[in-house]
Amino acid sequence: MTETEPRKIERPFTRAVVIGTGHIGSSLLRAMRRSQAARTIVGCDASESVRQRLSELGIVDHVEADAAAAVRGADLVIVATPLGAYASVAAQIAPHLGSGTIVTDVGSVKRTAIRDIAPRLPAHVHLVPGHPIAGTEHSGPDSGFAELFEGRWCILTPPAGTDAAVVERVAAIWRAAGSMVEIMDPDHHDQVLAITSHLPHLIAYTIVGTATDLEEHLKAEVIRYSASGFRDFTRIAASDPVMWRDIFLNNRDAVLEMLGRLYEDLAILQRAIRVGDGDTLEAHFARTRAIRRGIVEAKQA
Amino acid sequence: MTETEPRKIERPFTRAVVIGTGHIGSSLLRAMRRSQAARTIVGCDASESVRQRLSELGIVDHVEADAAAAVRGADLVIVATPLGAYASVAAQIAPHLGSGTIVTDVGSVKRTAIRDIAPRLPAHVHLVPGHPIAGTEHSGPDSGFAELFEGRWCILTPPAGTDAAVVERVAAIWRAAGSMVEIMDPDHHDQVLAITSHLPHLIAYTIVGTATDLEEHLKAEVIRYSASGFRDFTRIAASDPVMWRDIFLNNRDAVLEMLGRLYEDLAILQRAIRVGDGDTLEAHFARTRAIRRGIVEAKQA
Repeated sequence: MTETEPRKIERPFTRAVVIGTGHIGSSLLRAMRRSQAARTIVGCDASESVRQRLSELGIVDHVEADAAAAVRGADLVIVATPLGAYASVAAQIAPHLGSGTIVTDVGSVKRTAIRDIAPRLPAHVHLVPGHPIAGTEHSGPDSGFAELFEGRWCILTPPAGTDAAVVERVAAIWRAAGSMVEIMDPDHHDQVLAITSHLPHLIAYTIVGTATDLEEHLKAEVIRYSASGFRDFTRIAASDPVMWRDIFLNNRDAVLEMLGRLYEDLAILQRAIRVGDGDTLEAHFARTRAIRRGIVEAKQA
Repeated sequence: MTETEPRKIERPFTRAVVIGTGHIGSSLLRAMRRSQAARTIVGCDASESVRQRLSELGIVDHVEADAAAAVRGADLVIVATPLGAYASVAAQIAPHLGSGTIVTDVGSVKRTAIRDIAPRLPAHVHLVPGHPIAGTEHSGPDSGFAELFEGRWCILTPPAGTDAAVVERVAAIWRAAGSMVEIMDPDHHDQVLAITSHLPHLIAYTIVGTATDLEEHLKAEVIRYSASGFRDFTRIAASDPVMWRDIFLNNRDAVLEMLGRLYEDLAILQRAIRVGDGDTLEAHFARTRAIRRGIVEAKQA
């Protein structure tokens, strides 16, 4: 793994459009401005208040409400909306995409780009789905920052037969943002993310919900004494509800499969606690330290 | 909530002994040295390598291997071993405790201090169980630091009838370390901690274990792409295995009760994912944001 420093892009686009300018979209806009990734950088969002903030922040050359208008003349279109909007965004922009335009996205489930965007695009357009493994629990254009992608991976899942030069132009955007780029099969991506991201979020959302339902006298103290453990879960469970709704709906099979495995493992520990089997508990807890060491060594801690 | 600044203690002890000098014990030793909490500060540990590091770190006046020898002449004894050692430590030190000595601890389950320490102590000794809500995933004397307790809560669970002046002397140690002190019923403490700390740790240990058991080709990528979600779980699941084994064995009923509630809530979300019920998912995820805001406002984030 070599970490790439943020830098100027070698072959800039003419007109780059980011559709959906929340936490990830606005971070990418900032990173692209820094790397001078396109002569004109356009932010497009369906929300009036988001567009207002985008103008005030001054991180784009143009702000657009209408995706069809935004993509006219664009040679790069980046879809950064929740997954549930992919099909309608693709339908809106498809008739207005010029020949050779590259379309990519930043979504957490790559099957969705293949299923909801690909079939709606004209044949003269290139689709290179992408997913930056980065983000915080914050939402909206104010929460974005150019450094978000530095030292993080970005996974691209181009369909078989995609022109290597096209993939390289998308990869260049991410490398200029400081990311390392990896090419992967979309189904494999969705399986890996089910365990590294989707299942942890599901569990965090659940446990924080369980705490929310506690008897009143316990609830206040749960907040007060949240140090160590719970507060990390609440941070994760503060992530955008619509974005996460769509992730679970779109990666259903992989998430349910991993949840099934989790249930099995939890049952073993539950039984060990119930019967007082300290050896099983200690052996399990000692084993999980190793995977943490791997993450620290891989500089993703 | 008023945050107290670290400061010198007003009425220092003559000889303070910390038994068990790992992450929490050694942090407390450092904080007590800074606040000049006792004229002589003694670190006692059963492990030769830990004692060796304790001497090298120079954070105590004396290092002792034998708990009985360590507590002779002490007016303050702080038990900071894993919970499983409480009964044997109490039995070792009991015959050597002078009249009026204050015994306290730092363990995560307060019933254990009541059950395993209290009945073994002579009548002329005061027991004030305590629990600082602080800590990192690191272990051992090198990982401790004096600032660990600053801005965090410390819960004391003195038995009914304990002299208020005695409780105050223990509270003074923690306030001088920068903590806010709260008095609580031990059973109530154990319930609150079951949801804020013990259950999150159990789940983190489980999910990291589930990932450890993945097929080899997935496992390497779980480490590589651990950003967002999973890496927080691996940090939690890197905590000391023996300490956590003992916590689960000692707070069994409260942990199993909270785990039962978690199962119910998880089943609801699991079903929503399976049947594609986005409204239920979104409503749940929106609700959990509120509890995060409470934690941020309580300055425990």
